[in-house]
Amino acid sequence: MGGDHAPEMVLRGAEIALVRFPQLRFQLFGQEGALQPLLDTMPTVKAASTIHHAPDVITGDTKPSAALRTGKRSSMRLAIDAVADGSADCVVSAGNTGALMALAKIVLKTMPGIDRPAIATFLPTQRGESVLLDLGANVECDAENLVQFALMGDAFARAVLGVTKPLIGLLNVGSEDLKGVDSVREAAARLKDTPGICFHGFVEGDDIAAGTVDVVVTDGFSGNIALKTAEGTAKLYSHFLRAAFTNSVMAKIGYFFAKGALDRVKERLDPRRYNGAMLLGLNGIVVKSHGGSDAVGFANAVGVAADLIINGFLERIREELALVRPPVEGPAGTPADPVTT
Amino acid sequence: MGGDHAPEMVLRGAEIALVRFPQLRFQLFGQEGALQPLLDTMPTVKAASTIHHAPDVITGDTKPSAALRTGKRSSMRLAIDAVADGSADCVVSAGNTGALMALAKIVLKTMPGIDRPAIATFLPTQRGESVLLDLGANVECDAENLVQFALMGDAFARAVLGVTKPLIGLLNVGSEDLKGVDSVREAAARLKDTPGICFHGFVEGDDIAAGTVDVVVTDGFSGNIALKTAEGTAKLYSHFLRAAFTNSVMAKIGYFFAKGALDRVKERLDPRRYNGAMLLGLNGIVVKSHGGSDAVGFANAVGVAADLIINGFLERIREELALVRPPVEGPAGTPADPVTT
Repeated sequence: MGGDHAPEMVLRGAEIALVRFPQLRFQLFGQEGALQPLLDTMPTVKAASTIHHAPDVITGDTKPSAALRTGKRSSMRLAIDAVADGSADCVVSAGNTGALMALAKIVLKTMPGIDRPAIATFLPTQRGESVLLDLGANVECDAENLVQFALMGDAFARAVLGVTKPLIGLLNVGSEDLKGVDSVREAAARLKDTPGICFHGFVEGDDIAAGTVDVVVTDGFSGNIALKTAEGTAKLYSHFLRAAFTNSVMAKIGYFFAKGALDRVKERLDPRRYNGAMLLGLNGIVVKSHGGSDAVGFANAVGVAADLIINGFLERIREELALVRPPVEGPAGTPADPVTT
Repeated sequence: MGGDHAPEMVLRGAEIALVRFPQLRFQLFGQEGALQPLLDTMPTVKAASTIHHAPDVITGDTKPSAALRTGKRSSMRLAIDAVADGSADCVVSAGNTGALMALAKIVLKTMPGIDRPAIATFLPTQRGESVLLDLGANVECDAENLVQFALMGDAFARAVLGVTKPLIGLLNVGSEDLKGVDSVREAAARLKDTPGICFHGFVEGDDIAAGTVDVVVTDGFSGNIALKTAEGTAKLYSHFLRAAFTNSVMAKIGYFFAKGALDRVKERLDPRRYNGAMLLGLNGIVVKSHGGSDAVGFANAVGVAADLIINGFLERIREELALVRPPVEGPAGTPADPVTT
């Protein structure tokens, strides 16, 4: 029920996702009265789906605290509950990000070794695609959070991008060791000594699109600003191109011949192609679609979730965390601290 | 002497700047043996210039503290000294940013009412141009710093962009009042009540290129990341366009007809066009050119400095600060605090 064009956009997205992943089965959480008539018009989705009636809806304005208190019968909560009880492999939502994060944290809990979940996405670069995290779940981070983000980003890049040894960079305002804020410098010092992590060092804003590293790690404030600045700049470029191509007869002729090439560029930068941000660090797969997404974008978010399941993302990240921070056996009666040991 | 291609790039830049601003006169600080032979080949610059020999050079690796201690006879220091003693109206440098900021702060001092200088630039947007600050001078900022940046950005937009009532936005991860970190929320609350400031509220990363506001205010960490992410994304788009236009015969024909239009887009986004970042908040005009700039970019940095002088930027900002924070007359013997009153 989440997102600007739900529930139809979600069902159409499911329809598109089934073409690439015919093995998918959907549990649709939402208002049965709204879902059933739509589903009756989409035979492939209908055959792959079961409806689970949820009387309540968490809107875009619902505060996370209110979602926790009063959202027990909401479509979002019931969908997350299904992941928690094992009846679903993942949840994909285009709803309120803050509420989704809050509910997912309470219901699924963070993995051992992870203090705070992060939101990650992948982005186009000059060398292919890279992962960027955190995108806004944690606006203030200490060095330990950043190190944990690096570990989660590493596992995410392996599972979604298929990179065997992802190169990890820490976003900073310069590449010299002395640059930046304390938390970033301390995180860099620790990542240099983290086994299994291929740490490149500091990267700057322009390294994101250059593809200098496979995973760009940063706090949620800077990550959100970087992601949205990149989106805004791509839109500006398209805006200038449109203006230029309608400006003269020569340019219009050029557009006629170049339309195919221009469409390919547009497609490579299409934000819908990169729709599907992952809430990392939870005991379950939670993928967030952009709220303003259309069906094509939503299908890509479903595709990200499918990739994560097929590639055993949760097992990978658990193995990686265990390798880096093996659980310590404390003396009898002394519980070991999985985070700081 | 600063920058990757100095001193020739600087002199060629001065030559180009003279075409637009024939009234300019240059004091060239640097190694006379390097400058004189070059100057002999450029009659217009030679006629407008005097050489001031500076035996020392601050390199890109010089730490700000070392520049302060040992750079007394460097070209950078002597050029700033010339602004301080009134023999120059401004300084333009393509050298080490950290050293330039440190020397300018010590020699020129910050204006009354300003705790820390900021670095500002203007950027292309869908509606024209906007100002972004801080770009990295202050990686950690409190609410008071952000409010001061807003005042400085306001005066800068009036002087360089010619906007009479600039709209000011605070960069954040969402537009709701509760979003973001404490310093940003507190700065927003204070800017709402600041006289003479037209405060829009929070803006997000994509608002920068959209041109939602005339001045985007943020801390130096996020500002630096936003600026470089925008540069990187524009480069990525150009990279995709180049690849697309060489990909098929149709596209190549299209390119032939559309070349003029594409060149116009390239020109509108040319980083050289936006070269010339201003160190705001000092008792003097200090403009920083990108270190990797060529002569065209350096000429634009000189042009920014010329605009600031011609439009009486320093007087404007002093008036604005006095209006917002009128100097308080303390009782005899009690010095008034110009910052917090």
